Amino acid sequence: MNKGIVILISGPSGVGKGTVVKEILRDGDKYALSISATTRNKREGEVDGVSYFFISKEEFRSRIEQGLMLEYAEYCGNFYGTPKAYVDEMVNKGKNIILEIEVQGAENVKRIMPEAVSIFVMPPDMNALESRLRSRGTEDEETVRKRLDTAAVEMEKAVCYDYIVVNDRLEDCIDDIKSIISAESHKNINMVNFVKGVLEK
Amino acid sequence: MNKGIVILISGPSGVGKGTVVKEILRDGDKYALSISATTRNKREGEVDGVSYFFISKEEFRSRIEQGLMLEYAEYCGNFYGTPKAYVDEMVNKGKNIILEIEVQGAENVKRIMPEAVSIFVMPPDMNALESRLRSRGTEDEETVRKRLDTAAVEMEKAVCYDYIVVNDRLEDCIDDIKSIISAESHKNINMVNFVKGVLEK
Repeated sequence: MNKGIVILISGPSGVGKGTVVKEILRDGDKYALSISATTRNKREGEVDGVSYFFISKEEFRSRIEQGLMLEYAEYCGNFYGTPKAYVDEMVNKGKNIILEIEVQGAENVKRIMPEAVSIFVMPPDMNALESRLRSRGTEDEETVRKRLDTAAVEMEKAVCYDYIVVNDRLEDCIDDIKSIISAESHKNINMVNFVKGVLEK
Repeated sequence: MNKGIVILISGPSGVGKGTVVKEILRDGDKYALSISATTRNKREGEVDGVSYFFISKEEFRSRIEQGLMLEYAEYCGNFYGTPKAYVDEMVNKGKNIILEIEVQGAENVKRIMPEAVSIFVMPPDMNALESRLRSRGTEDEETVRKRLDTAAVEMEKAVCYDYIVVNDRLEDCIDDIKSIISAESHKNINMVNFVKGVLEK
C-alpha cells in the first residue's frame, strides 16, 4: 500500500477553507483531518481525540521539547499544536491527511516534513473576500477592515506555497485540490516501488 | 490568459500511449498535439502541416544548426524532429501541447525546456504488456520478445520522468494525466500573476 500524503491548506479568513476541507473529507477512505492538541479546557460537546487531544500544559511543553509537535502556537494563554504521531499514523495507513493551518504553522511543518504538499486557497478577488466577510454579518466595519488587511498580508505569502487554488466555484476548487493530490501520488518518487515491482517480475 | 503547458508522454510499445493521447486531445480547447517535421516523402493522404511538416534535408539541417529543433533523430535515412516554433505558438495560445516522444527525445526536450512536464505511461504488469503486443497479431514470437526486452529497458527510465501513470483502465489513466496537467497549472510559479492581480486591486 502507498503511504498517504500530508496536505497543508492555508488561506485568508473568509476564503472558505473550512467548507472546502469539509467537502474533501467526505471521501473518508482517502482523506483524514489532522487532530490538534490543545491545553485549553474541553467545552461541552467536545470529545477528546476527536475535537482535539486535550492535554496539560506540562505535557504540551514536554512534547515540544521531545520534538513531537509539528508546529504549535500560544493563543490567549493556551497552546495549540499538531502532534506528529497522529499525522504519521494516518500517512502510514495510506490516508491523505489534511492540516488546515496558518501561514506560520505551514512554514514550520514544511521545515520538518519537506514532503508535505502546501496549498494556498485564494479568493477570486478582494471584492469577493470582502463580501464573504460582510455576509457573515457578525463583524463590525472595523473588524472587516482589519481582516481584509490581514488577508492581504497573508496572500503575499501565497507564492511560497507549492500550489495555489482559487475558491470561486466551490466544486472547481475541490476538483483542483483533488487533482493536486492525485498528481502528487503519481510523482516519480511515489511510484518507484510500483516500477520496481513491474520490472522484477 | 495563462500559457499552456508542454507535456512529454513516453512509454513502451504496446502500453497504449496512442489511445491515451487521442482521448486527451478530444478536449481540443485545452489540448493540442505537437506536429513533427520530417524529411521523408509525403505519403498519400498526408497533409503538410497536419500529419507532418514536410521539409528538405537541407532545411532540416539548417534548422538544427539554428537551434530551431527541440529534438530530432535520424531513422532509415530520414530526419524526424520537433520544431520549437509550433510548440511555442501553441503554448502562447494557452494550449497544453502534447509530444508523444521516445525516451531519448524527452531527455533532449527537458534540457531545452526544463518547464516541460514529463509523464511515463507504465503497463500494470509485464503480462498485460505482453498480451497487448500479442493481441495485435501482426508480430511473430521473436519480434514480441524483442519488444518486451526493449520495453524493460525503457521502463527503467520511468523514474527519470516527473510523473508515472499506469494504463490499466484507460479512463483512469486519462483522468490521472488530466489531474497532473491541472495540478501543474496551479503550481505557484504559474499562479504568480493571478496572485499579483488580486493584491493590486
